[in-house]
Amino acid sequence: MSEKLAIPGRVKEISSLSNPIVKDLRLLEKKRHREDTNRFVAEGMKLVIDALDLGWSLDTLIYAASKRGDAKIGGLAAKALAKGADILIVPEKVLGAITRRDNPQMVVGVFKRRFAKASAVTDGSGDVWVALDRVRDPGNLGTVIRTIDAVGAKGVILIGDTTDPFSPETVRATMGSIFGVNIIRMAAEDFASFANTWSGRIVGTHMAGETDFRNVDYGGGPTILLMGNEQQGLTDALVEACTDVVRIPQAGRADSLNLAVATAICLYEAKRESLALEPIG
Amino acid sequence: MSEKLAIPGRVKEISSLSNPIVKDLRLLEKKRHREDTNRFVAEGMKLVIDALDLGWSLDTLIYAASKRGDAKIGGLAAKALAKGADILIVPEKVLGAITRRDNPQMVVGVFKRRFAKASAVTDGSGDVWVALDRVRDPGNLGTVIRTIDAVGAKGVILIGDTTDPFSPETVRATMGSIFGVNIIRMAAEDFASFANTWSGRIVGTHMAGETDFRNVDYGGGPTILLMGNEQQGLTDALVEACTDVVRIPQAGRADSLNLAVATAICLYEAKRESLALEPIG
Repeated sequence: MSEKLAIPGRVKEISSLSNPIVKDLRLLEKKRHREDTNRFVAEGMKLVIDALDLGWSLDTLIYAASKRGDAKIGGLAAKALAKGADILIVPEKVLGAITRRDNPQMVVGVFKRRFAKASAVTDGSGDVWVALDRVRDPGNLGTVIRTIDAVGAKGVILIGDTTDPFSPETVRATMGSIFGVNIIRMAAEDFASFANTWSGRIVGTHMAGETDFRNVDYGGGPTILLMGNEQQGLTDALVEACTDVVRIPQAGRADSLNLAVATAICLYEAKRESLALEPIG
Repeated sequence: MSEKLAIPGRVKEISSLSNPIVKDLRLLEKKRHREDTNRFVAEGMKLVIDALDLGWSLDTLIYAASKRGDAKIGGLAAKALAKGADILIVPEKVLGAITRRDNPQMVVGVFKRRFAKASAVTDGSGDVWVALDRVRDPGNLGTVIRTIDAVGAKGVILIGDTTDPFSPETVRATMGSIFGVNIIRMAAEDFASFANTWSGRIVGTHMAGETDFRNVDYGGGPTILLMGNEQQGLTDALVEACTDVVRIPQAGRADSLNLAVATAICLYEAKRESLALEPIG
């Protein structure tokens, strides 16, 4: 209430599922509405705090009415207001409706989407990027983004028609890493042109690759790891763009690895020399 | 119809969703019913054929009425009947209801569940097993099983209260590998006793591990890779059971890897010396 009085119109309490603001937020489950309004939803206080620290633009901070008076949430709300966000205080049932969860997080952030430009693809020595050709599965994309963050790679290049990196399923699977990596979109033709100007390696994983993925010299220059679509693998045109076409050896009956698993194995190999165990603490 | 006449009662055509046989099969979505009837559902003709070849016991073969006359499905049905399975011919809407899919596969198998005993945990030189402590996520478990199969490891030991390996989500994520690996259940106390008799290494992954996972000598003896619960990691008691407590180095902001990703990275390391690229074809 005091917040409401302090900044009229910027802090709202809403309890009805049929309120237009709530309806608008619920629509963010749909890709079309995320695109039209350039926003997406991320769940959890830690995520929202991290995202603000990383400079992401917060559109609306939503929190549970039951948490009013919580000092930590109050501090976050003040910070959010200072950064120009709206505040929405709602019952848990509304949080549940917005996030489609039975047990929703008490804090949810609605952020502006952010894509980096092709010119943001850095080619410093040791820089590693992942390029995904027509990735379909939201969980796979989210897990790839999480692994990119974990190994200190730079970001993901989404080639062609892919699943939306800002869908709720993908954002959840990133476990907050959506805010920590660069996300770039390119049409397949644009990636081919881009590849011509790229100074480093482009290492494509392919069932017909004749090089063991561990036998590439990843040291020194920058690397793009290029991974194919879950069902079809890489297109011929993208294979053409590679400096190295590799395969991950397998031994069992299974004829393939999950895409997120294959990408992680390649990322750990590309980063093998530079990743070292930090002392604990 | 001819099949129906040939083996009365063993081949049925059912089109009603309220038929008791269909109701029973739809209930296999529930863990309780899978346990009570010791059955589970696997989707897709290739999977069903592979499972039969691997000696799994087929309870019921279900296929779409629209595929009657298909030579390949006819051959599979004959084989299934010879092995003692029932045949169910149904409209696609019934297949969709049983598998909860909008676009169901045309062939679905209902198999008997199969768990291996603790005595099946082989300790040959180079044998690798994965043990998962209280794994919660069906997709993670399925992906781990798929990777175990892909690297030629032996199987998975499920410790404590875990997600069901025979749930539809897990079976789907295995991409058929559910039929290719041993699945063993153990209470946490039983794993501790088992560990005392185990001749090889037990390599546990832990946030506080002081050994780089790449610095373990996996050569020679058998290895169990022990992975903790998604949220809580390994219990102290399980850490006690380890011969090596390792950590996977990370470099970014993310403070963890997805469980299936971490397991895959460890599996590729444990198998690093023995996995080699086979020539194509």
